[in-house]
Amino acid sequence: MPGKANGVGVQVEDTKICVVMVGLPARGKSYIAQIAQRYLQWLSIPAQTFNVGNYRRNDAPHPTADFFDFNNAEGERKRRAAAEAAVADMLRWFRSGGVVGILDATNSTKDRRKWVHEICDANGVEVLFVESVCDQEDVIMANILDVKTSSPDYKDQDPEEAANDFRRRISQYEKVYKTIDGDGDEGDYTYLKIMNIGKQVIINRIQDYLQSRIVYYLMNLHIRPRSVWLSRHGESLYNLDGRIGGDTMLSPRGELYAKKLPELVRESDDRSLTVWTSTLKRTIATARWLPAHYNQLQWKALDELDSGVCDGLTYQEIKDSYPDDFVARDDDKYNYRYPAGESYRDVVIRLEPIIMELERSEDILIVTHQAVLRCIYAYFMKKDQAKSPWMNVPLHTLIKLTPRAYGTEEIRYEANIPAVSTWRGKGSTAKHEAPTGDTM
Amino acid sequence: MPGKANGVGVQVEDTKICVVMVGLPARGKSYIAQIAQRYLQWLSIPAQTFNVGNYRRNDAPHPTADFFDFNNAEGERKRRAAAEAAVADMLRWFRSGGVVGILDATNSTKDRRKWVHEICDANGVEVLFVESVCDQEDVIMANILDVKTSSPDYKDQDPEEAANDFRRRISQYEKVYKTIDGDGDEGDYTYLKIMNIGKQVIINRIQDYLQSRIVYYLMNLHIRPRSVWLSRHGESLYNLDGRIGGDTMLSPRGELYAKKLPELVRESDDRSLTVWTSTLKRTIATARWLPAHYNQLQWKALDELDSGVCDGLTYQEIKDSYPDDFVARDDDKYNYRYPAGESYRDVVIRLEPIIMELERSEDILIVTHQAVLRCIYAYFMKKDQAKSPWMNVPLHTLIKLTPRAYGTEEIRYEANIPAVSTWRGKGSTAKHEAPTGDTM
Repeated sequence: MPGKANGVGVQVEDTKICVVMVGLPARGKSYIAQIAQRYLQWLSIPAQTFNVGNYRRNDAPHPTADFFDFNNAEGERKRRAAAEAAVADMLRWFRSGGVVGILDATNSTKDRRKWVHEICDANGVEVLFVESVCDQEDVIMANILDVKTSSPDYKDQDPEEAANDFRRRISQYEKVYKTIDGDGDEGDYTYLKIMNIGKQVIINRIQDYLQSRIVYYLMNLHIRPRSVWLSRHGESLYNLDGRIGGDTMLSPRGELYAKKLPELVRESDDRSLTVWTSTLKRTIATARWLPAHYNQLQWKALDELDSGVCDGLTYQEIKDSYPDDFVARDDDKYNYRYPAGESYRDVVIRLEPIIMELERSEDILIVTHQAVLRCIYAYFMKKDQAKSPWMNVPLHTLIKLTPRAYGTEEIRYEANIPAVSTWRGKGSTAKHEAPTGDTM
Repeated sequence: MPGKANGVGVQVEDTKICVVMVGLPARGKSYIAQIAQRYLQWLSIPAQTFNVGNYRRNDAPHPTADFFDFNNAEGERKRRAAAEAAVADMLRWFRSGGVVGILDATNSTKDRRKWVHEICDANGVEVLFVESVCDQEDVIMANILDVKTSSPDYKDQDPEEAANDFRRRISQYEKVYKTIDGDGDEGDYTYLKIMNIGKQVIINRIQDYLQSRIVYYLMNLHIRPRSVWLSRHGESLYNLDGRIGGDTMLSPRGELYAKKLPELVRESDDRSLTVWTSTLKRTIATARWLPAHYNQLQWKALDELDSGVCDGLTYQEIKDSYPDDFVARDDDKYNYRYPAGESYRDVVIRLEPIIMELERSEDILIVTHQAVLRCIYAYFMKKDQAKSPWMNVPLHTLIKLTPRAYGTEEIRYEANIPAVSTWRGKGSTAKHEAPTGDTM
């Protein structure tokens, strides 16, 4: 049977991959697991993290470092039981349609890795080990500080004592930890070794396309501080008419926003940005008053969702001329594709290289369109696909997103220049409608 | 000033990268250099290979292995002079707008690599070392056999003696060869180490997007034998009318081609293929009689070039309604973008993930459209961008491409089912015109 190409353009229904994290505590394993899961889910690939620590806490909610002494038989038994429970849940999840399961644990011994590999292999699951090796003291310290304040293991404990105990826990692991050894028994494993968050990576025996996508994504990560700014173009002439698509210029109020954008950007930060626009007139015009020393790039991939035969129509005209399409789109807005046009899913696929480039880059301001902005925003903020096409993205507003270890921070800067609303509720054909319910 | 996003969507005008090949003779360095150059040129990134052997042959056209003895002062002097001449030419080329220069030589000592690195650094050129390490005897033997028959060094010599001499030459290099050492002095270099053609890769200190694209491309290569089959959809109803674009079904003769396609494929090979189509009805219909056990995927990225406002028109109608566009397109068909549509350049950008996936994959049959097929064909056959949009790609013909070490082999299988011609000469508005001049 013909299969639909999925998010990354490949049929993944038959692939099951267990991404097995490897590394000492405080090496950013959970961070890597979290963003890998976000990336895959954004691409419509079912992905789930199984954190062995969460299972262990059922049995041992607040263990001290002694618990992690590998000579402590009781601790060892409980930790083994937690790993077994996590893997069992993961295998059940694979049987119900899971594609990429992420096993978040130290997996610091060859024995433990062999055990995971064998059990996955016996269940038809490919294994991709992802080891994070880090000897940069500042990164490790930042992770330790983070754990002592945020880990449920140290809830309600003195932060200083928590940090000391966590350092002792790391020492317990250091006694038994063995890095993945490409020349030895583990040379046949598929693995990615990340040294000091991307300075060097080693990639061994990648087997298929989905593995290579995950590896390419992870090798592009960095943890240098940076932000991503998002803005729609200023109000356009088609916005005033309630028409979709097209390539019209800005309205007088849209021009005012373009003139004010440099000030909004300065208010948000004093760093120099790189500016990406689409190839359409209204985004290029919106960005044209930004400082001349900002590098500007036009990307076709940032053009608005292509509404095909409906380009240039109002929603009332669409309902009149294509009544079935009008209903079908409201029914499943994420997957609905305009005749001769695109769906939100199509837009996500063409945005994937943009996301990859964003992950590599430092400070970027993106001036783009409503649907495209919704997709990029959904990536950073982990928004649900079914809901993101209905989010309200107001005109004349600058959004600053700053990725942090455990999520993305958002600040909005309003230009206070009036504009029409381009938001539309399900079933509505109004030209301009006040947004209700879920906004971004 | 705003810059146009180029082939890979980034502004590369300010980047200059020297890809410095490293490795013993017969490790596939020239093969890697050649396909990296092809890939970059296809993406409109100026790329050029500088083969030090070609420079050395000016001075020493048919050297024996003794010439490569590192104790042979005369040989050493000539080889050094050849490297200097190649690098000097490369730097001149960078100054005239070159972006990626590939220095194809063994560069087998740390001293030589340090010298190249310093001279590039002094000239504002980034250095990416690409080392090919191979201990698979069959691969080395195949390369030796290839050199003895194709290298100008051994022209008109007895093949057996040539092979023996070449083995002695390799031994000379083995005496001084040092692999790039990530822990030592070379740990700060940017490098990609490819072990046994992709089994393992090590990536160190990638600095920017273009480097990461080159590295990702090279890490996806494999040398397992495979072919790529290309076919247009069967003749469509719009083809009969001389209309472009649309999403019409097959004509009766197009249906005959679809029914015959399985037989043509069997004639060409008895292996099982994976089939990729676009999301448009005419490619899906063309592929629907292929064996049920062939995996089929639909890719939006394989849809025909979007002719925007001209979709569904004949060339006469385009000339009547958009006379300026009609002339502009014929003037520069590769870069011309239909209003609200695409250019050939845009199609290449969206095909880039397809090419990447093709490089990773084994046997794939692609059923797609005229413009898309031209772009894919241009990649494999190194066709000029200015010419490829004018190539004749006949309907009802299966093309089998088989990548080899020094180029791509092509075989065509004609269905012998008549179809209209959809080729069009410059300036013509004919509905169906006999192709003249350059065909594919």
